[in-house]
Amino acid sequence: MSAPSDLALVPFISVEDMMRLVHKLGLRDMLAHLADAIEADFLRWESFDKTPRVASHSTDGVIELMPTSDGAQYAFKYVNGHPANLARGFQTVAAFGGLSRVDNGYPVLLSEMTLLTAMRTAATSAMAARALAPKNSKVMGMIGNGAQCEFQALAMAEVVGIEQVRLWDIDARATEKAMRNLSETSLEVIACKSAEEAIAGAQILTTCTADKQFATILSDNMVGAGVHLNAIGGDCPGKTELHRDVLYRSDIFVEFPPQTRIEGEIQQLEPDYPVTELWQVLAQQASGRTHTDQITLFDSVGFAIEDFSALKFVRSAALQQGTYSMLDLVADPDDPRDLFGMLGRAKFPRLLNTPI
Amino acid sequence: MSAPSDLALVPFISVEDMMRLVHKLGLRDMLAHLADAIEADFLRWESFDKTPRVASHSTDGVIELMPTSDGAQYAFKYVNGHPANLARGFQTVAAFGGLSRVDNGYPVLLSEMTLLTAMRTAATSAMAARALAPKNSKVMGMIGNGAQCEFQALAMAEVVGIEQVRLWDIDARATEKAMRNLSETSLEVIACKSAEEAIAGAQILTTCTADKQFATILSDNMVGAGVHLNAIGGDCPGKTELHRDVLYRSDIFVEFPPQTRIEGEIQQLEPDYPVTELWQVLAQQASGRTHTDQITLFDSVGFAIEDFSALKFVRSAALQQGTYSMLDLVADPDDPRDLFGMLGRAKFPRLLNTPI
Repeated sequence: MSAPSDLALVPFISVEDMMRLVHKLGLRDMLAHLADAIEADFLRWESFDKTPRVASHSTDGVIELMPTSDGAQYAFKYVNGHPANLARGFQTVAAFGGLSRVDNGYPVLLSEMTLLTAMRTAATSAMAARALAPKNSKVMGMIGNGAQCEFQALAMAEVVGIEQVRLWDIDARATEKAMRNLSETSLEVIACKSAEEAIAGAQILTTCTADKQFATILSDNMVGAGVHLNAIGGDCPGKTELHRDVLYRSDIFVEFPPQTRIEGEIQQLEPDYPVTELWQVLAQQASGRTHTDQITLFDSVGFAIEDFSALKFVRSAALQQGTYSMLDLVADPDDPRDLFGMLGRAKFPRLLNTPI
Repeated sequence: MSAPSDLALVPFISVEDMMRLVHKLGLRDMLAHLADAIEADFLRWESFDKTPRVASHSTDGVIELMPTSDGAQYAFKYVNGHPANLARGFQTVAAFGGLSRVDNGYPVLLSEMTLLTAMRTAATSAMAARALAPKNSKVMGMIGNGAQCEFQALAMAEVVGIEQVRLWDIDARATEKAMRNLSETSLEVIACKSAEEAIAGAQILTTCTADKQFATILSDNMVGAGVHLNAIGGDCPGKTELHRDVLYRSDIFVEFPPQTRIEGEIQQLEPDYPVTELWQVLAQQASGRTHTDQITLFDSVGFAIEDFSALKFVRSAALQQGTYSMLDLVADPDDPRDLFGMLGRAKFPRLLNTPI
């Protein structure tokens, strides 16, 4: 068989390629680049075709497809969410996805997105905190020390200037793991014995737990005036982390309201409860933090535009750094109408020598 | 870096792998297997999670995601439809997709689906014709001789017993291409000078054109009593092939009504115009062909369950025949919570030796 044509081959970023890319760029720089790329796309929010993700729920978890397009490029992500995976030795979240050209529909990138989702989620949190958290925030409390934890800590350090991270998890081994991983960084990291201890003195509170049930990671009396809440873990129906009284005391900022009202913390509130779209704050069309006592809440569920931005960034970076391979993904006959002839002309004996 | 673990690696069927698989199984056998696999899944229609595909329309075409699940496995397909691609040297339809486990959300197959979609579409047409066409149908007229043409002809030959295929296309080069490709098969193939000539004496009329506009490939006076219409080309809003008077004279069979009413020939009819779901005919819960004068119409737009069946079949066949490779697609840290540690322990100097 002759080699596939250029049209047939699609750049592919494997898990190993993604790790090589992170090492080449440096993780902190990569997180900062991602935050800037996502912010740039949030600033042109209205140019995107937006739809709530398409979810297939089962007793064990959820599998979702997240598409979006800016009219020139189209992105989609496949991602699962299976809280019970952890106990079975699997990732809670695994993902992959790609980019394609809108004008001809051909894919131009396929990529692992388990690592990329962890990085873009942290970059989005940091981008939101840069806009909403108190000026000169230096301390972050982090409740839930799972797979997202270190990425959140480093993104907040690089993008917001956080210097101290206070960790707590219901499972002490998760905290130990995060302490170990963050020990080589410039961050001051403190393992705490309770949620209350973790949030003491913090300007930013990040909740990042994975239980699929209405949980109360932060109750009302734990949240003081003036903090920024970065709520990551509540991201599907029935999965929340904050007591609803916390929500009523906060000004709430979201990605895409039709999706957040189904999946975010605000699923606990009335369907028309007022929230602000984060992109409007960035574009200076809406107010963010207006006074020091204000509690700001970024009710983050993850939105397709963040994946779009991340895929565009890593495609460009991977092509530059050589951290990709070419995948024989698209059938490309000499004559587009002659898909069958492509099969027939392939140099395999069976199709040519036996009656078809 | 150490080799990825088993969990990280996902079987991948490239375009070359798919061609090798077709050659190993034989195309006619493969089409027959696909028809049987699809029929078996149509018979358990109610066990599937069904949703209309998610379409992103642009001036040039459409990009769609097609998910479905039977509770044990989940399938999705990425597919575009760009009629103008033909003139630019690209495929009108290019596709890829995969299968995953519902219990943990991990992918278990990624596959090219441009060739596979062509085969499953033909297999679905043949499966429907086996149920609906006149007994002992021997002649098929085929209007539109593009990429689907030869697959339709061979599937109808293998599954229904068609012996003569009468070809017509507005572009004579398309007909010449199909004549050439089908010349080595056992089919009697006749190039016709008009649509009228192509349908003369045919029990099955297949329309398979690609214009994105309300076209009239078959007008009312062209369709005689007793035939089976296999309408393939009308598959998105604004893209139809049959005059609506033909529809009113036919008994109409569809895949998934909520999708077909948007995309199929029946978009020309009232939203509540009665149609029969094909699966119900197969499961003997509804009547198919009941008398010889009846015109049956399979208004096919392509549905996710057909891709599900096709992906399951090719996964099993490819693993058996060795026509696949393993793709490093899923990040798999030793501890699922330790995605960051996986990055850190990778044997690359930058992350370990410089401050992160």
